[in-house]
Amino acid sequence: MLHIAKNLVQLKSTLRSTHSIVFAPDLLAIENNTLASILNGVPALIVTTKSVNSLYGSKLRRYLAARTPTLDYRIFVLSCEESSKTIDNVLAICEQAAMFNLKRRSRIVAMGGGVCTDLCGFAAAIYCRGVSHIKIPTTLLGIVDAGIGIKNGVNVGSNKNKLGTFYPPEYSILDPSFINTLDNRQIRCGMAESIKIALVSDRELFEIIENDGVELINSRFVDPWASAEAVVRQSAIRMLEQLNKNLHEVNDYARAVDLGHTFSPYLESISQYTLPHGEAVAIDMGISVLIGRSLGLLREDTAGRILSLIRNLGLPLYYSAMDPVELWRSLDLIRAHRDGRLNLVVPTDIGTYAFVDDLSSIGLNGLMALVVELREQNGEFDRHRAMVP
Amino acid sequence: MLHIAKNLVQLKSTLRSTHSIVFAPDLLAIENNTLASILNGVPALIVTTKSVNSLYGSKLRRYLAARTPTLDYRIFVLSCEESSKTIDNVLAICEQAAMFNLKRRSRIVAMGGGVCTDLCGFAAAIYCRGVSHIKIPTTLLGIVDAGIGIKNGVNVGSNKNKLGTFYPPEYSILDPSFINTLDNRQIRCGMAESIKIALVSDRELFEIIENDGVELINSRFVDPWASAEAVVRQSAIRMLEQLNKNLHEVNDYARAVDLGHTFSPYLESISQYTLPHGEAVAIDMGISVLIGRSLGLLREDTAGRILSLIRNLGLPLYYSAMDPVELWRSLDLIRAHRDGRLNLVVPTDIGTYAFVDDLSSIGLNGLMALVVELREQNGEFDRHRAMVP
Repeated sequence: MLHIAKNLVQLKSTLRSTHSIVFAPDLLAIENNTLASILNGVPALIVTTKSVNSLYGSKLRRYLAARTPTLDYRIFVLSCEESSKTIDNVLAICEQAAMFNLKRRSRIVAMGGGVCTDLCGFAAAIYCRGVSHIKIPTTLLGIVDAGIGIKNGVNVGSNKNKLGTFYPPEYSILDPSFINTLDNRQIRCGMAESIKIALVSDRELFEIIENDGVELINSRFVDPWASAEAVVRQSAIRMLEQLNKNLHEVNDYARAVDLGHTFSPYLESISQYTLPHGEAVAIDMGISVLIGRSLGLLREDTAGRILSLIRNLGLPLYYSAMDPVELWRSLDLIRAHRDGRLNLVVPTDIGTYAFVDDLSSIGLNGLMALVVELREQNGEFDRHRAMVP
Repeated sequence: MLHIAKNLVQLKSTLRSTHSIVFAPDLLAIENNTLASILNGVPALIVTTKSVNSLYGSKLRRYLAARTPTLDYRIFVLSCEESSKTIDNVLAICEQAAMFNLKRRSRIVAMGGGVCTDLCGFAAAIYCRGVSHIKIPTTLLGIVDAGIGIKNGVNVGSNKNKLGTFYPPEYSILDPSFINTLDNRQIRCGMAESIKIALVSDRELFEIIENDGVELINSRFVDPWASAEAVVRQSAIRMLEQLNKNLHEVNDYARAVDLGHTFSPYLESISQYTLPHGEAVAIDMGISVLIGRSLGLLREDTAGRILSLIRNLGLPLYYSAMDPVELWRSLDLIRAHRDGRLNLVVPTDIGTYAFVDDLSSIGLNGLMALVVELREQNGEFDRHRAMVP
């Protein structure tokens, strides 16, 4: 719409996009037509990680080769550690796309964890002023969280995701069978995000994780299959419902999915990113739960139930290097990042939450006491389960 | 909107934006409140070029200083040649933004030519996953064309605009008084884009340029003032109307504003970008006009009238290094870029146009003849006006 006045012309524009999230168990099974039918007719640069390539590369190549020449693709293998989340790797993907002679009607396909899907989303957003992209997350964390969002980013020095875009994928393809080759710690980290989304939106999902979470981790999401499917499906759908409320974050920065993501940036930072994201989220949820209890927003027994689940799944509630004074100070950075408001998400029951801006009634002393309590709970847990956070 | 089915969830999203184009003569006059009121309340990194800084830097600083401390800004001066259109300069702008501690609610302001506005638009699109940006074009070409579009881009090697985004500015601020310090050749190049938009959409604008174009160039858009204003305003509005039809180029690549932009990439390329964009557009329009005449789409006298205007304004119709065989071959690249169709825009009268896909009835021989005709017309013109293309 163009509005023309004397000294002012306004062009109001609308950009529409459709992001399809496809549940496709055994995606690379030779008889599964899902991926082939999606890739058909559009040239694709498929980017995968060294570790995914070593596990699934030959299966992927066999799958695609069975459909050649109908599929037009090139595979690019890229090392995808957290330290690989750089603009240089985004440009390396663009360079591959150019060497493959990709034009505007083409796709970049990410098959990997969060770093891979972030790099590919960013590359797709800027190559030829934007091409389509597809995310095939291969970690549980990717399947239930990072792989279905529309944000991407790279780090600049110690600034996490300082550069990036909001850029909806055309498809996210979710296949729980990739979880088979994850180690337990990675699976637990993904479960932390599932607990997060359950806590803010889905009591039933929480109870599935309570009942079958340990078995799911031990069986690597094979048994019980119905619960494995439910966790993947429900986590993804609930996440999408939350994102859908404010997809481009243009309204405000009060987002339920930020449960577990207020203290965790500090924790990850002091660990120099050796503390996995999901574990940092688990600790952050522990703190948030106790803050909710302290403020009278969450019942004592419910708080205990949530902490028990986190511990039972083998996730930490405490990180030895964390300093309550620094933790308290780190909230200023979060406030700045969220446009001046803290928007701390605290559960008020299983499936409901509140935003808290003012922690002055808790204060640094209260926070210290909470941290001590979490250390004790975690310590007990360590003795029982020989876990090292 | 979230549609949930068994194996498929679709998230349909809409991103809205409002791009305000403000006509603001004498923007930097101390009593002009336009820029101050726009900048008020939002931190801004103002990026300007070395040449604009030497001409307007002190005026800009005086203007802003008169409003300090209500304005929160930092000025960054960057060399902005065509060779500066690199991802490294985009990152340099982002680095300045980070050093200035800009958060998501902030702005990057470009005051300069097309390279500056492109670099800033790109930086704004990726810094903190997207901040607002403002374009203040200081060239006539920027005012009537590049400064009001939503595309940005940088070159990768010889690939023009290989990386970039569609990213609407929040404001474009158009001030014809910047034209005062342009040299004649730059002004003529801007006029080429005005002729382009007039040819496809506005007979009245074409006639204003016919009547007053030479005087406008010689007076640097001071006399006649009514015509100067009309050329800026009408060119910008017509351009916006055209862009508005297909802002993100998601429909197709048949765009009226591509008149003059089919053969010109080849011309710019063989000149190694020493041939200014506007002159390449003028030559391309000359070829397109003669193709229209050859195909019987454009009357002979109208074709002559258009070529006369181009010549009278001191714009070339011919470039000595151009090779009809290569020109013909270059169309394949354009077809690939436009998703398989040539979509050559040819005028069918003053203010109307057609798309041509098939040049086989003209062929290479016909194109050669057209080029010879343009060389002769240009040569005559060179002898009369001592112009060197």
